[in-house]
Amino acid sequence: MDAGDGLRVVAERPNSRATMKDVARVAGVGVGTVSRVVNGKSNVSEESIAAVNAAIERLGFRRNDSARMLKTGATASIGLLVEDVADPFFSLLNRSVEEEVLRRDSVLLTASSDKDPNRARKMILTFCARRVDGLVITLPEGGDEEYLRAELDAGTSMVFVDRPPRELDVDTVIVDNRGGARTGVEHLIGYGHRRIACFTDRPDLYTASERIAGYREALEEAGIPFDPELVFSSATTREPVDEPLGRMLASDDPPTAVFAGNNRTSINVIGALRIHNTSLAIVGFDDFELADVVVPGITVVAQDPKAMGQIAMRMLYKRLDGDVSPSQTVTLNTRLIVRGSGELSRDAVLAAR
Amino acid sequence: MDAGDGLRVVAERPNSRATMKDVARVAGVGVGTVSRVVNGKSNVSEESIAAVNAAIERLGFRRNDSARMLKTGATASIGLLVEDVADPFFSLLNRSVEEEVLRRDSVLLTASSDKDPNRARKMILTFCARRVDGLVITLPEGGDEEYLRAELDAGTSMVFVDRPPRELDVDTVIVDNRGGARTGVEHLIGYGHRRIACFTDRPDLYTASERIAGYREALEEAGIPFDPELVFSSATTREPVDEPLGRMLASDDPPTAVFAGNNRTSINVIGALRIHNTSLAIVGFDDFELADVVVPGITVVAQDPKAMGQIAMRMLYKRLDGDVSPSQTVTLNTRLIVRGSGELSRDAVLAAR
Repeated sequence: MDAGDGLRVVAERPNSRATMKDVARVAGVGVGTVSRVVNGKSNVSEESIAAVNAAIERLGFRRNDSARMLKTGATASIGLLVEDVADPFFSLLNRSVEEEVLRRDSVLLTASSDKDPNRARKMILTFCARRVDGLVITLPEGGDEEYLRAELDAGTSMVFVDRPPRELDVDTVIVDNRGGARTGVEHLIGYGHRRIACFTDRPDLYTASERIAGYREALEEAGIPFDPELVFSSATTREPVDEPLGRMLASDDPPTAVFAGNNRTSINVIGALRIHNTSLAIVGFDDFELADVVVPGITVVAQDPKAMGQIAMRMLYKRLDGDVSPSQTVTLNTRLIVRGSGELSRDAVLAAR
Repeated sequence: MDAGDGLRVVAERPNSRATMKDVARVAGVGVGTVSRVVNGKSNVSEESIAAVNAAIERLGFRRNDSARMLKTGATASIGLLVEDVADPFFSLLNRSVEEEVLRRDSVLLTASSDKDPNRARKMILTFCARRVDGLVITLPEGGDEEYLRAELDAGTSMVFVDRPPRELDVDTVIVDNRGGARTGVEHLIGYGHRRIACFTDRPDLYTASERIAGYREALEEAGIPFDPELVFSSATTREPVDEPLGRMLASDDPPTAVFAGNNRTSINVIGALRIHNTSLAIVGFDDFELADVVVPGITVVAQDPKAMGQIAMRMLYKRLDGDVSPSQTVTLNTRLIVRGSGELSRDAVLAAR
């Protein structure tokens, strides 16, 4: 990124934002003139307008900076980027963010990255071009974060949800994926299982890698050797898993239990078990709408997307209100919900074979 | 609504929009001056700005009118109001609309009405205050449409989805709710059922009332008397239905089948059947993610929210591109998906009692 000296200075102090005073100093005009230009009044000379606009450009000053927002009573635009607005987890997060946005009379722009870093970048830059005041972001793996740093330096507040940033210093809300997965797998081990299959999302995904790590930690603690043949990571959560499950079931030492890494994977595993006409103990990460309606009910490690959205929005509005304290990471605990599928013992599974 | 003469004239020709030329004529200035004011240039006298703004106000002219959008290459903002972005049906509609928005480099503002007409009105007026170019709306029952007429007259394009407007003359995409429900209930009648319970949304909801009408039509055609004791309409689709189902099951002539009016009602019915430890034949309106995973799989009358979103957005963009042809209503057919629950015969249900 090629930027002027002014922007580089701002970049060195990521929590400070250019103020109208800074713009006035750089433009060589009074603060009142900057205010008139910024608010589109007409009684300013062309020369002053040009000088102010150049200074705004150079300093990365935003017209919609929080100070102006509060001063004029104008309301904020918030951009939300999730993986997929139609995913059960993200649609609940979306709704929760919307409720907070409504309470503050802001508007919400939404988009799905579809796990594509280029699409994410395009969407976020489109949001920024529309001058959103704040962003709530679940960034897909694999892209760079530099364009976000530029927006951050230019005064756009942002909060990361579901996954932490790699390098950016921003507020973040995540869940304890590793601890939650460990609890879920320990629960299965408690029912005698030693051959526990693990179906997850792509392992380069932060949440998936953390959950796999939790799975491995639980095995290790119990002295159960890790067997890569029992781990299947799919490129998409919509992919059926009956083939890999079939391979595992046909092996010499088949699994008696499954840890499913997310809601759609749980659903896929239930479907695959029906195809193979067999039952295994199941614990899934993420709750889902029908988990207590299928028979047996699905024992899950539940996240709370509503709380995640609420906390993220409170953090974001604090920044919009001018808070420049150090950035925070909030880690939400998960909750094991026992419904039957996770309490099928190893002996019961083997007896039914 | 109290409006000036200009607006009333426009209101009489709902498909015509005020142009810059109209504004110039009313303001008594040249088109170039209007353009400079609209685009925020500074070389205009305070007097002309006031005259142009007054004319804009009076004519309901929009800065973001499609002509300007096309001319300057600026891209559109689309506002989507659904009942609940976290509902399985509307989250899929949301995603579909987003894909079309992405293809056109527009941005999407989203909101949930939560079935509250006041909330819907607030959200839509907020969208309009942010100068969205077009709206896709599922309007809750019970509110007035007058504020929408004003926005329509002012040049905001809109498409109604899922439910038709009561009075507004706008493009609409709905599904054949009545025909779909009739097909679903006929399917149950075909398996010998004559006592068919009907669980639906509030009957003042357009989709619910249409589906109840389809239910009644199927009964009537088969010569089965309509029994109001077998119909339960709940205020919220999240409400459990085990109590009303229990009452029906305890009656002298209990139902042997259920027609469930939407996806969440189907899920509630499945849960209630588990509580009462009984099985009835089920056909549900709306497909849902786990319908083929529960045992038996749920036979559904499926809508296609993806197609609904695509068609709505194509209609909307045609309007944004200047199409002023008469408004259209597109009615999508539903599709019966047979999975087992709807093929449980009356004899089989009675034999299991």
